[in-house]
Amino acid sequence: MKLYTTPATPFGRTVEIVARELDLMDDIEIVPTAVAPTKENPEYQALNPLRRIPALVADDGTLIVDSALIAQYLAAFAGNRTLFGDDAPDRWAMLNDFMIAKGVCECLVAARYEGFVRPEARRWLPWTEDLFNKVHAALARFEAAPPATGEGLTIAAIALGAALGYMDFRFSAEAWRERYPALAAWHAELDERPSFAQTRPG
Amino acid sequence: MKLYTTPATPFGRTVEIVARELDLMDDIEIVPTAVAPTKENPEYQALNPLRRIPALVADDGTLIVDSALIAQYLAAFAGNRTLFGDDAPDRWAMLNDFMIAKGVCECLVAARYEGFVRPEARRWLPWTEDLFNKVHAALARFEAAPPATGEGLTIAAIALGAALGYMDFRFSAEAWRERYPALAAWHAELDERPSFAQTRPG
Repeated sequence: MKLYTTPATPFGRTVEIVARELDLMDDIEIVPTAVAPTKENPEYQALNPLRRIPALVADDGTLIVDSALIAQYLAAFAGNRTLFGDDAPDRWAMLNDFMIAKGVCECLVAARYEGFVRPEARRWLPWTEDLFNKVHAALARFEAAPPATGEGLTIAAIALGAALGYMDFRFSAEAWRERYPALAAWHAELDERPSFAQTRPG
Repeated sequence: MKLYTTPATPFGRTVEIVARELDLMDDIEIVPTAVAPTKENPEYQALNPLRRIPALVADDGTLIVDSALIAQYLAAFAGNRTLFGDDAPDRWAMLNDFMIAKGVCECLVAARYEGFVRPEARRWLPWTEDLFNKVHAALARFEAAPPATGEGLTIAAIALGAALGYMDFRFSAEAWRERYPALAAWHAELDERPSFAQTRPG
């Protein structure tokens, strides 16, 4: 399989952590790929019209875009039924946590685009404030009930870990550990897993 | 179940079309909900920290955000195995089409926010051009191979139909039918299904 990604993206990191947790890295060739809004990339866009990363091309040539779908494909490929909670009684609540954590990544990446891709004169502070309002509402929710880790690790914990790692990488001034001490302890343990330690951005 | 949505959103419309195709509307109470970036909505945000629509609250109280996950939940609730291609040999290619169609909706909604929520002086034309570049690359891909409809209707066709309907609703000047005649014919047939006809925005 070919995985088009770059270490900086929390979406690509989510997929790479999944691949490592599933011991699939020998089956995957990483194709370093950079994308940014307003930057043309016709070669990559011929593969993924949305010009987003990550994207996976399976061995049979099937294209898979979207980190959630790629992660799901890898779990199915590996015959794993725990990462996506296939047989878990709380499956939908866990997948919902995954979607909220992925949404946090989306808000943070949007804030990064606003603050670093868009020309300064075209930035709009309420936009960034709105994104961080959503990020903090989501983190407050996770502070009260962080996803399972350890033996019961799921895609929800992986995506939330990637979101927090991205916040450290791009928004280190946010000081989220002071606001969310339970999440800080939760993340510190998670971040020691080899799959996380080997994929830290920056 | 309670579904928080509004007719204008292509994501909410995707879910409502799914609910109608699955004959679940008697099980669902629609809770009209409006959201917009930079507009506070503490009551709704207490439910969904990301302040996005749609959101579903299942009968057991489980919250489900993200249109793809809600649609998947409804299909599982109804015992339907065709909309998400559970047993189809081309399942991953179809789900990938779904993700690309959902991505088109995301680009269009982002363009709407850029052009109608953000103050005019803060808009940045290359941003909007970039979004439509992605939209058109995706539509060109679907023009060559539109998703199955009729008896073989899947979530990919539903999401693409919602994307095209949203383009008609918010960007009627785009004249996409001239550029994509096969998609235009494809959409004209799909749009006559009761689930589509009963959920047209505007």
